[in-house]
Amino acid sequence: MSTKTIITIARQYGSGGREIGEKVAKRLGIPFYNKDLITLAAKQSGMSPEIFEKADEKATNSLLYSLMMGNYTFGSQITPMDNLPINDKLFLAQSQIIREAAEKGPCVIVGRCADYVLRENKNCLHVFIYADHFARMDRIIKKYDVDPAKAADTLVKQDKQRANYYNFYSNQKWGSPENYHLMLESSAFGIENSIDLICKAVEMKENAR
Amino acid sequence: MSTKTIITIARQYGSGGREIGEKVAKRLGIPFYNKDLITLAAKQSGMSPEIFEKADEKATNSLLYSLMMGNYTFGSQITPMDNLPINDKLFLAQSQIIREAAEKGPCVIVGRCADYVLRENKNCLHVFIYADHFARMDRIIKKYDVDPAKAADTLVKQDKQRANYYNFYSNQKWGSPENYHLMLESSAFGIENSIDLICKAVEMKENAR
Repeated sequence: MSTKTIITIARQYGSGGREIGEKVAKRLGIPFYNKDLITLAAKQSGMSPEIFEKADEKATNSLLYSLMMGNYTFGSQITPMDNLPINDKLFLAQSQIIREAAEKGPCVIVGRCADYVLRENKNCLHVFIYADHFARMDRIIKKYDVDPAKAADTLVKQDKQRANYYNFYSNQKWGSPENYHLMLESSAFGIENSIDLICKAVEMKENAR
Repeated sequence: MSTKTIITIARQYGSGGREIGEKVAKRLGIPFYNKDLITLAAKQSGMSPEIFEKADEKATNSLLYSLMMGNYTFGSQITPMDNLPINDKLFLAQSQIIREAAEKGPCVIVGRCADYVLRENKNCLHVFIYADHFARMDRIIKKYDVDPAKAADTLVKQDKQRANYYNFYSNQKWGSPENYHLMLESSAFGIENSIDLICKAVEMKENAR
């Protein structure tokens, strides 16, 4: 199946969203963007990838601090990139790369508010992947080697971080239906069936145009 | 395709969820339950269908009133059906019919907290159908003959009523991912494609067992 669609995937921690995204890209023979975006963004901005790595998917810690430091300007003025906090700079650089990737053609993009960045692009399928609490616990213990005693806590913290990042930069609510075309519980279907379902949804959305 | 699955559908007002549910049932050759549940429940309880009709999918107006009237009992005692407010009586009667329908075999059930009533049943696919605000406006004006001047208001009110009903009886949050296996924006796919996607999801969930 050949596609024209840009698939954005937001995902709960431990839901298998990244793996599903990667395999959807492989199945459809289209590029996959995940952490690579960071390196690309870093290269483009001339900054060290290590600094960017630390800031990735964390919202600016203190807006108040930024305001005090005069890092934000309002109204018709454009905030100079140089004055922005590192996280905001990363968000802007990644958003630019996401838009460029989408212009090149179909691809899969995981995380990084891609659904929000590409909200005006009619060729997108925006997907949210979540899973049962126990399935996620199981996955992060077995696959990500998380200490079982800390697994429940890690789930909450990671999701909170993703939600904060998304809500801060998009001013929308992470995991809220109006931001996505399709939301699926990967643990009800399994990884391979979830891939099938997303590919089917791509086909159905292209049919609908 | 023959199926073993009980499909519950919760839906935003004007999303086409009822139509989609009805056509999924037809496609799979299985029974469809919607308003019929009211009549069945009424017959079973020996009450007038007209009274039930008015109470359907509205939560009890005042819990405080019920408490004052002694209509609720707590702890190990069972509340006698006769002392319950009409809406609660209807909810219990419908829940019983939903459970009986599910025991009989595969079917499609729209609304009435069916996902919550059948939360322990492993043969279910719980679906939530939503749609773009403007698509819903368009649908209720054209198909349900709602006055265009009142359409936006009607959407909000109807959804609030459904959410209140669900949240009251289930103590869960209507439209929140953890209650559903699949959530889809019908306006992104269209009615026919949404049916295809749900049938595919039924197949995929049965595969996953």
